Amino acid sequence: MSLIVTGTIGIDTVVTPNGHGEKILGGSCTYFAAAANFYGPVRLVAAVGGDFPAEFLGTLGHFRGIDLHGLEVRKNSKTFAWGGKYHADMNTRDTLFTELGVLAEAPPKVPALYADSTIVFLANTHPGVQLGFLDQLPKRVFTVADTMDLWINIAKDELKALLKRVDGLVLNFDEAELFTGKSNPVTAGRHMLDMGPKFVVIKKGEHGALLVHRDGIAAVPAYPTENVVDPTGCGDTFAGGMMGSIAATSPSDGAAAGSYDSVRRALVHGTIIASFNIEAFSLDRLKTLDKKTLDARYAEYAAMMRV
Amino acid sequence: MSLIVTGTIGIDTVVTPNGHGEKILGGSCTYFAAAANFYGPVRLVAAVGGDFPAEFLGTLGHFRGIDLHGLEVRKNSKTFAWGGKYHADMNTRDTLFTELGVLAEAPPKVPALYADSTIVFLANTHPGVQLGFLDQLPKRVFTVADTMDLWINIAKDELKALLKRVDGLVLNFDEAELFTGKSNPVTAGRHMLDMGPKFVVIKKGEHGALLVHRDGIAAVPAYPTENVVDPTGCGDTFAGGMMGSIAATSPSDGAAAGSYDSVRRALVHGTIIASFNIEAFSLDRLKTLDKKTLDARYAEYAAMMRV
Repeated sequence: MSLIVTGTIGIDTVVTPNGHGEKILGGSCTYFAAAANFYGPVRLVAAVGGDFPAEFLGTLGHFRGIDLHGLEVRKNSKTFAWGGKYHADMNTRDTLFTELGVLAEAPPKVPALYADSTIVFLANTHPGVQLGFLDQLPKRVFTVADTMDLWINIAKDELKALLKRVDGLVLNFDEAELFTGKSNPVTAGRHMLDMGPKFVVIKKGEHGALLVHRDGIAAVPAYPTENVVDPTGCGDTFAGGMMGSIAATSPSDGAAAGSYDSVRRALVHGTIIASFNIEAFSLDRLKTLDKKTLDARYAEYAAMMRV
Repeated sequence: MSLIVTGTIGIDTVVTPNGHGEKILGGSCTYFAAAANFYGPVRLVAAVGGDFPAEFLGTLGHFRGIDLHGLEVRKNSKTFAWGGKYHADMNTRDTLFTELGVLAEAPPKVPALYADSTIVFLANTHPGVQLGFLDQLPKRVFTVADTMDLWINIAKDELKALLKRVDGLVLNFDEAELFTGKSNPVTAGRHMLDMGPKFVVIKKGEHGALLVHRDGIAAVPAYPTENVVDPTGCGDTFAGGMMGSIAATSPSDGAAAGSYDSVRRALVHGTIIASFNIEAFSLDRLKTLDKKTLDARYAEYAAMMRV
């Protein structure tokens, strides 16, 4: 099925205990699409400003599966820029600065060419904007949205409206707790199921992810690694591997795409691709990753999980 | 092979957000043996005072696999007593009081009847005492020790001496970090492997456990549950399931018992039995647990893990 992602492309400045990256390619759409690309084609809808470096376009173009027809370059605008600094444990970070740029303008439009998209990922942005994207995708059969604490705090009603219209929600554990007031992740997940979606994926960083689906629960551990350079984009590459693998294995049926077993297996693909992303800044690791190396780590993980 | 455990039997007072238990049966040996009992016989070496309630002896006797020949009842001494209160998230707790009682006296002796024990678990106590137990078990072929922050702080040299003589070490993540100064759990695990053991099991509570073995790494998620009543003894029941299943499946060979695959599968047994223990205070859940229910949850977990 045809996979589409809407979200941000940004210029990041990232400081971690193991190094730093100055004005590097980032953004939720960027990481998602680069990861999904390993499973099949992915359509991208995002906006950048006239300051967006040609070099970054070249990097995106390197991923042959990424369809860039939906990339709006706004000559007189500025690209979204973000700076963050990770703490010693790599699990938490402080935002150093946020320059909204194009994100403060009207959201990009879904091109007519993409109107037949069936599998939709709404990367993290204002839930009102996410709802606007949904209205432009009448052929969608399977939709998953990401969100964050900011929208839970300032746009809870729109987020609840969104939840009635998506199959799945992806968010961090802290955000799930904030949203539901429940500190048990299974309870928090069930609480969100009551708001509409068929499943919720609660991300726990190095502790992996928890799937709370109407048809079952699953804990998916992260791939254990010592090679942690930059966690930025791991949530988005996780989602990219998840949605990419679903698009590749669910030829036409939204129900099959969203089944407990389909989503559970997809989380493993997400986990594995994210474990590569964390090994370098920006897309540096995914740029050099080949399918054989990806498959080998998947097999290693599968062996580790065999009960 | 014959499994033996040395450790504490105590009278606990526990407060959790979901209830409290006043003067209930506790202790590392207690929880370990109750869990191991589901896989086969387990020999117990521990001391209690004259104040130890007959009712608690009855509870231990209920578990038919527990061999109580090694239980020393010291008429003129007091049983170890501990009080703890869990925080709202159930992951951390404060100690309310500790009355050492028999723990301040000479450790119990391994009875002659147990001298042929081959699989040894040294539950958490002073590493000097743990070394003393080892000297009384000349036929041992596979030994695992538990430890805690207190001994890392005040008896590090003895702990290091112990590590040269055991096959495996079990400890919490915080303790592994304290011991090694490494915040990455894989790195911390490798650091401890350099001190002697073949493997280290790093426990992460609701996030599961990490096996760092000379022959491989494995992440084992906890069974996701909403039914969290009292986490006390979960680390000990985890170890009991782990060692019990190893004793049941490794008829005579220590190397086989400690292989990567043997230990990895054993951690799953530990995880499952601990997921029952958390559902009630003291041994209340394990007392009513039957093998069929245990096996059913194991199968459910195995299905959840299938990649």
